[in-house]
Formats: sequence, structure tokens, C-alpha cells
Amino acid sequence: MHPLNPAVASTFRPPVMEARRWLEGVSFSAERPLINVSQAAPLDPPPEGLRRAIADASLNIPEAHLYGPVLGNGDLRAAVAQRWNAAYGAKLEPANVAITQGCNQAFCAAIATVAGQGDEVIIPVPWYFNHKMWLDMQGIKAVPLFCGEGMIPDAADAERLVTARTRAIVLVTPNNPSGAEYPAETLRAFYELARNSRLALVVDETYRDFDSREGAPHDLFSDPDWGDVLIQLYSFSKAYRLTGHRVGALVASERRMIEVEKVLDTLAISTSQLGQIGGLWGMTHLGDWLAGERREVIARRDAMRAGMEALPGWKLKGCGAYFAWAEHPWDLPSPELAKRLVSEAGVLLLPGTMFMPEGDSSGLRHVRIAFANISGAKIDELMQRLAAFRP
Amino acid sequence: MHPLNPAVASTFRPPVMEARRWLEGVSFSAERPLINVSQAAPLDPPPEGLRRAIADASLNIPEAHLYGPVLGNGDLRAAVAQRWNAAYGAKLEPANVAITQGCNQAFCAAIATVAGQGDEVIIPVPWYFNHKMWLDMQGIKAVPLFCGEGMIPDAADAERLVTARTRAIVLVTPNNPSGAEYPAETLRAFYELARNSRLALVVDETYRDFDSREGAPHDLFSDPDWGDVLIQLYSFSKAYRLTGHRVGALVASERRMIEVEKVLDTLAISTSQLGQIGGLWGMTHLGDWLAGERREVIARRDAMRAGMEALPGWKLKGCGAYFAWAEHPWDLPSPELAKRLVSEAGVLLLPGTMFMPEGDSSGLRHVRIAFANISGAKIDELMQRLAAFRP
Repeated sequence: MHPLNPAVASTFRPPVMEARRWLEGVSFSAERPLINVSQAAPLDPPPEGLRRAIADASLNIPEAHLYGPVLGNGDLRAAVAQRWNAAYGAKLEPANVAITQGCNQAFCAAIATVAGQGDEVIIPVPWYFNHKMWLDMQGIKAVPLFCGEGMIPDAADAERLVTARTRAIVLVTPNNPSGAEYPAETLRAFYELARNSRLALVVDETYRDFDSREGAPHDLFSDPDWGDVLIQLYSFSKAYRLTGHRVGALVASERRMIEVEKVLDTLAISTSQLGQIGGLWGMTHLGDWLAGERREVIARRDAMRAGMEALPGWKLKGCGAYFAWAEHPWDLPSPELAKRLVSEAGVLLLPGTMFMPEGDSSGLRHVRIAFANISGAKIDELMQRLAAFRP
Repeated sequence: MHPLNPAVASTFRPPVMEARRWLEGVSFSAERPLINVSQAAPLDPPPEGLRRAIADASLNIPEAHLYGPVLGNGDLRAAVAQRWNAAYGAKLEPANVAITQGCNQAFCAAIATVAGQGDEVIIPVPWYFNHKMWLDMQGIKAVPLFCGEGMIPDAADAERLVTARTRAIVLVTPNNPSGAEYPAETLRAFYELARNSRLALVVDETYRDFDSREGAPHDLFSDPDWGDVLIQLYSFSKAYRLTGHRVGALVASERRMIEVEKVLDTLAISTSQLGQIGGLWGMTHLGDWLAGERREVIARRDAMRAGMEALPGWKLKGCGAYFAWAEHPWDLPSPELAKRLVSEAGVLLLPGTMFMPEGDSSGLRHVRIAFANISGAKIDELMQRLAAFRP
């Protein structure tokens, strides 16, 4: 095919879509339905009140169908700023908040403002595959930072990877795919490294609402000059079950917002009005409900931990928020294992290779399990199926 | 600010947002309200049936709140393929159609698959500013192709601009900002040039539903090998008044869709479900209504033509679909004229400089008027205000 941008051609195809193709032609019985732990997505719609708020807006608010401002609706930007100030001890203004068409797009916009072709970005591995894909497609080198104990990256290790071309460090906490909740000191150490090395620190907190710890996960916003270093990303999709509406957020300095606005104007013009209305309604009315959701996800994490501990040969490397990252006991490469688990165990999970640099062998021995969508009973059944599998 | 991607920093800020800032601190009386002809956007919401369809989906279709496939919902892709086959004499499959978060994003995805940093893309000028911005931000050189009589670009002129780095030619028809409806022979000539030079031909038909001509605007899809050359873009926003939902489409070969899917997965994951449901409902139920909308827009175009012809000193260079491109009679640079028209005439339009390469002087003498949103009576009033203006 001609012409073809080699930067796009050389990156891999969307892993979640690839995994979906493994289901083609495989049937599952009513007694043993598929257990799908491949995607970090709620399986149920949002609570009725939120669905009704969106429906009412569609019927009664004409502006809900028309373009909004590029950086998002003022009320939602203000709500994020206000809640963040309370949660992080921050002093954000609405002008520090941009609303994006989902958090993937917030990442693309953040990176676009800091790095271009030939630059480097440091990312802990295992990494979130869409981050790697975007960097590939932009001609930016993703520099892998291997995680140690508890899947926590070390800023001292990162410092050794900094070159004259490094532009940013990307952290995801709680992490996708490892589930690790990064300690506040870890984030502080990376922040200091970024500041001293004149890098951006991009912190993706998509799963912040399911962090098992109480209180603020870091104090970076309390630094008066946080905007010189920090770009924070957030998603409304998981907390309020709005994955189908595509609403995320990006928090940065007002100066950086000038650049963010250019990117979002060309990529998006504006974000879905109904999604923004839904996100605001959720923030305003679903606080207690979300607290219950979080407790349930933490209970599922505990069930995962207990189940994996009892699973012969498996080693749980990280577990939190939506994800478990686990080492399987077989010589079978994980992509082959994942495909066989579909037909032989009725389980769809993602192989570790999807989250690792090409050629890195540790991905072959690991898998990601997005457990937050399945009940405790289903987690038990998942464990039984994995225990019964014979390679 | 550090770090900062120079490719993003060096492009201009969103023109529509800049124009909105000119309104700050200016008040308009009830007798002489602002006439806003700056943005190509419907001012009214979609018909009630469509608003109700979206509301019903929010309440009753759980999947309307959850992730869909990266390339769009199967039913909407099939509907586009079917209608395009009827309209263009094409033989498209649903697999040739991707649904995007608005047509700007379709452009970004199309360009991403064909060109990267250091490559060149030929675009007729005046151009659509978001196209120029995206190319700037990607490090791709936008090569201006100046239009001749009737604002129609000439493929022979374009041929002289092709270099070893050229990857694509972008045409917008009906054109933004000139309103020109490109003849089928023009599109055919560019298609042949692209095919012979192994370039992609990106044809943005955002305003196709308001083309004043009957029948297919081109026959390019009838070529059995169209997918080797053509990438077509479309927007649901204008036809069905869905600008606030962000739904567009990209039509390409199945082979290219593999690359498009990578881009959309990282930028979007999927497109708003309610927007897709609205777009499908519109395509299915609003055929007659849209035909009426088109007649109205054509009537407004006729009013614009008559009005501009009678306007002393003005020259109408192009007029069709949503836009008029006109030369004003004064020595005043168009950015200054545009700002003064806000306070002195109560008119918001965009200066020609926003659509021209930097430093090109012809932009100073031109303006874009997005007239499709205002009634015939308002067009008359616009003419009176322009006639009364003294520089």
C-alpha cells in the first residue's frame, strides 16, 4: 500500500481488538460462559439517575447537541478543579483543567505538547499499550524503565535513562497493567527528577477512584510551581461507567493549556456534551455510590489475591484497582496460553507480551487480568478454571 | 516553559476560539444583536425525534454507555456503506467505513496513515485552518496550491508541486472556506495525478449534504482500485445538527483500515455511542428533513450572492454550502477589519489571514462568512451592516 507512514505501520494493532478476534468461532455454553477479563471496562451501564440526566439533557438542553468550548465546559472544568483542590490540597483554577475525548486523548495531547519525533519518553514496564502505540506513531522513542519489587519503578533507575533527548516520564498510578499503587514518596522522587532534569512528569490517574489507600495519593499539587513539571490525566469512564461517552481530563499549567488547546482543537474541536453532562452529574450526585463501587473493587482485589495465592505455580506480581499482573507456571508463551485459555478454559485475558517491549522475554511468562468487572463468585470460578487448565 | 514541542508551539492558536475572545467586553443591544457568521455550526438542536432517540437510548440501551468497537458500530458503518453505494455508484463494504470522533479526527487519522515528519501534503489555499494546524504539529509541510477562477484548484498546478516527499493531496468539497463545489472532472484529474504519483487523495466531503448540484459529486468510487488512492472524510455534524456529539466518518480501503484502527484506538478507543445512535437515526429517518435543510441553505446562498453583488466594492470569490469567501474593498488588513466589525457593526466573521499561509498578503483582503446559520432576513441585515461600515 502506498503511501504509508512507516511510524504507524510499524506499531502493533490494538491489543483489545486482537483479543476480541480470538473469540471468533468459539462458542461458550450456558453452564460455562466466557469469563472476560481482557478489558478494563465496566460491563453495566451507569446508575439510572445519570442515564436520566443524559436523557433529559438530550430532550431539553439545546446546547447539549452543539459545539462547546475546545477545552471543555466551564461547569465541568470548575467541578474538577474544586474536587481536586479538596482531594489533593491543591489550588487549581478551572483554567488548569481541560476536558478531553477520553483519557487516551488526554495522553496524546499531553505528549504532543512536550515531545516530537526523535525525542524520548521514559515509561515503566510493563506499560499501557496505547501509550506505547502513540509514542511509536509520533516517532518518539519509548524508553522502558523496568520495575522492581511490588512493580514500583525507581526514580534512581530512571535518572540513569535520561539523555539529552528525554522530554517526559510517564507514570500510571494505580497502574495499568500491574495494579500497583505508587507510594507518594515514589511520585515525589520522580517529580524531583523531572524538575531537576527539566522534564515533564505525566501522571495518569485513570484509576484513582479505586485506589485502596485513604487520602491524597501524592502531594505534588501543593508545590507552587507544580505546573512547570506536572501534567495529570484522569478518566470519567471507570468511576461513572461512561466508557461509551469518551470523557477524560488533563490538568496542567495555564501556559501549557495554550498548547493543549491547539491539539484538542484539531483532534476533537470539543468533547461530547452529553458525556460532559454525565460526568458532571456523576461527580455531583454519585459520591456515595462511587464509594461503594470502590469498596467492591477492593473486595474483589482481596478475592484475587487470596485466589492467586492458592493457585499452584502462579505468582501474583501486582494487584490493585482494576488489574492483576501475574506470572503463570508454564513454558507456554503467554500469547499462546491466552488463545488456548479462550477455547479450553472459557477465559479471555491479555498476554504479558502486549505490555512489554518487543523481544523482552518476561512478557511471555506474564498475563494481565482485569478483574474489576467480575464478581467474587466469578473470581472463584476463574481460579478454578485456571487451576484445571493443562498446557 | 519546558519541555515544549516546537512543532506544536509554532502553530497558531485555534482561530474560532480567538474570534470568540474578540467578543469579550463587547455588548450588543436587543435591537442590534450580534450576527455571528464565524463558525460553520448549526445554531439549533436536531429535530425532536432524534433528540428523543438519543434520550431513549440513554435510558434503555445499556451498551449506549459502554465502549464500542474502535472503528465504530457495525450498524452505522453498514448504513454509511449502503447509502454511499447508492449515492456514488460505489461498492463499499462496512469494512471500508470507520466512525471517528468528528471529521477533524478523521482527517488526523487519514494523514497519520500516509505521512510523517518531513513529508509534504499539498492543499489548495485558502485552506481549512485545522488541517494546517495538524500538519504543522506533525512536522508535515503543508504545500499551498493557489486556486484560480471560481476558487477551483488545478491538478496541473498541483503536479508541479509534487516532490519526492509528497505523500498526499487534500481536497475539501464543497470547500471550507471558499464554498466552491469542485467539478467532477477536477476531482478526477486530481485522482489521476495522485494515482500516477503514488499519492493519497484525501477528499473531505463534510459539506456534501449541502452541495447544490444533483447526483453524485464525483465517480471516483467506481474505479475498482479506488482504495489504492482515495480516502474520503465525512461529518454527521452539519447534516443532523450533531456538532456537540462528535461523529464523523472515514472511508478507505480495508488494508488502510488496519492502520486507521491503530490511530483511532490510541486517540479515541471508540466514538460516542449516543452520537453514533443519533447519526444512524438521522440517516434512517431524516432524509426528507435534510432535503429541506439543503434547499434552505441553497436559498441562503442565493441571498448571499445577490446581497454581495449589490454591496459596493465587495467581490464574491466563492459561495456555496456553508461559506462565502469575499474580497473586501478597504485597505484595512482583514484581522483588524474583523475586530472592528464586532464592535462597530455587530458582525463576527473570520479574516482571510486565518486561511492563508503566513505572510501571504491576499488573506488581508479577504474574509470568510459562514452564512448557512442565518436566515435570509439576517443575511439582508448583514449586508446593510457591511454597507454602512466605514473603515
